[in-house]
Amino acid sequence: MLEDYAEISVYALLVEGGKTKTLSVVINDRGDLLSYSISGSSGWTTVGFDTAFSNLTLSIMSAINRSGLSPREIDIAILGLPDLDTESAKIYFEEKLREWGVFRVKPLIIPDFVVAYYAVTLGDPGIAVIAGTGSIAYGKNSRGVSARAGGWGWFGNDEGSAIWIAMKAIETSGKFFDGRGPYTAIAQKVLDFFKIKDPLHLIDIVYSLIARDVGEIGKLAILVDEAAEEGDQIAKEILLNSGRELALMAKAVYEKIRVDSEEFIIGGVGSVFSSRILKESFTSSVRNYIPNARVVEPLVKYTPIKGIVALLVEKTGLSRSFIELVVKSVQEAISK
Amino acid sequence: MLEDYAEISVYALLVEGGKTKTLSVVINDRGDLLSYSISGSSGWTTVGFDTAFSNLTLSIMSAINRSGLSPREIDIAILGLPDLDTESAKIYFEEKLREWGVFRVKPLIIPDFVVAYYAVTLGDPGIAVIAGTGSIAYGKNSRGVSARAGGWGWFGNDEGSAIWIAMKAIETSGKFFDGRGPYTAIAQKVLDFFKIKDPLHLIDIVYSLIARDVGEIGKLAILVDEAAEEGDQIAKEILLNSGRELALMAKAVYEKIRVDSEEFIIGGVGSVFSSRILKESFTSSVRNYIPNARVVEPLVKYTPIKGIVALLVEKTGLSRSFIELVVKSVQEAISK
Repeated sequence: MLEDYAEISVYALLVEGGKTKTLSVVINDRGDLLSYSISGSSGWTTVGFDTAFSNLTLSIMSAINRSGLSPREIDIAILGLPDLDTESAKIYFEEKLREWGVFRVKPLIIPDFVVAYYAVTLGDPGIAVIAGTGSIAYGKNSRGVSARAGGWGWFGNDEGSAIWIAMKAIETSGKFFDGRGPYTAIAQKVLDFFKIKDPLHLIDIVYSLIARDVGEIGKLAILVDEAAEEGDQIAKEILLNSGRELALMAKAVYEKIRVDSEEFIIGGVGSVFSSRILKESFTSSVRNYIPNARVVEPLVKYTPIKGIVALLVEKTGLSRSFIELVVKSVQEAISK
Repeated sequence: MLEDYAEISVYALLVEGGKTKTLSVVINDRGDLLSYSISGSSGWTTVGFDTAFSNLTLSIMSAINRSGLSPREIDIAILGLPDLDTESAKIYFEEKLREWGVFRVKPLIIPDFVVAYYAVTLGDPGIAVIAGTGSIAYGKNSRGVSARAGGWGWFGNDEGSAIWIAMKAIETSGKFFDGRGPYTAIAQKVLDFFKIKDPLHLIDIVYSLIARDVGEIGKLAILVDEAAEEGDQIAKEILLNSGRELALMAKAVYEKIRVDSEEFIIGGVGSVFSSRILKESFTSSVRNYIPNARVVEPLVKYTPIKGIVALLVEKTGLSRSFIELVVKSVQEAISK
């Protein structure tokens, strides 16, 4: 255990890669934040492999330089990255980092959904259901067996995610405008949100958003929640259904990894869990599907750094109290 | 009636604009095809307004030049164009054509779905339900009152279209791979279609297609039809539901324009009607919703020129026998 050798300082590089930005921090094993740096997207599906790797190395080198250390003094490097659904994407980053050759140690590359799992469970047996722009569930049992479900992307899938809810909002609005579907308060809210009067203008707006930044459309999910809280039945059904779909993802993971006697932590991560109706539907469906689950409060204002530090703690044997300490330092630093 | 003045030749420019190509033809009132020309997309949502207009004028001028006429000798010009959901798009093309100033006459600009309606009904009271890559219904009654339903785009809508069916294919496959949903033969067909073994590779493929050409994804609809014909229950349900959704679009239009005593022609246009299961579901649902409908055979291998010539016939009073004559000449010419 590293804490037994407090006089030996261990330096860790932790990277929180994302589709919009990449944050690198350098810390030591006393929990001091030595430096940090933020660069652009490290999501290859958004910006391509080369740009993703450039942004990643820029963020890393800038953080290490600011720490006053050399890259060879880094004892452990953990990189949480998006878009690692296929083995080939992980291999690309591993090989590029090896070619780059600045590290003494081999960096650990972890998909963002595994990072979210660590944030929820701190590495204990359990499942995280991530539902922000997209949705996916990932879990691991006490024997280290892991599985995923969902995460197929927003095109026809990512059930329960903000984009999925937004799709339903546009679908039910379009049907209402046509007279094909029942009244829903969502329809007027969508027009107001985009500041348009003619419903057909929606078509131009939605398709220019898809081309530019499909994630933006996910903001319509907030309108669905508003309408549901105001009593709109269509909106309520969309959210109840979303909660059930997210619970089904947890169930699919559970069935792949379960150990009957084990207590499982199950928790949500991401913005859609800020909807009370969705959260309640999710929680009751999970309890129904997985009676031995201990459902914990969702991490709504989630920062991946929490999961990355939890992973560091697991790898090094540092105390779990270290997690909150580092998360607090990082959040204070970057909010300045 | 123009046919009463056979010695006076009338020259017509007909343009079949599309999201991939733009066909212009010049004909006279004896049905002779004088010339034709094909250029790129005139769909502004695909290539932008400026390129759409360039492609349009290139196609027009090239056809007119080849005909040996001057643009001022054109007596009537009918342009069927995609992406005219909003009045502003139509106004853009009208103004640009006026500025361009080569025509003596004001060209008629008609949305592609209205062109499809003319192809189905030849201008008689009725409704066309267009379901190819996207879906929309458009109809007109004997008093000239028209309405549309659907056509909101493939993002969460365009129910019953090839993209909608493809979305369901990916959704049900993803759920099956995860263990969240029942077995469906679609799943293996989708893997075979893309020549992949690891289902997670689907994510990369689907998202690179969305960025490049979302219409390509619509090809998965064929796999759903195959699976359904082979007895797959999930696939069958998707197609039955598609047929019902398309019939609901017709119903919504009918309710806006109906005259109770009137007999209405209702017909489908587009590739998805080549599915027997979908077509039967559509037909029986339409008969159920609109008992006085006369459901005609769908136009599966549809070429918009048919609708544009039908519109020309309506505008000029030419005989309806003119339509098949011109369509045949054009099809023979461009297939050479």
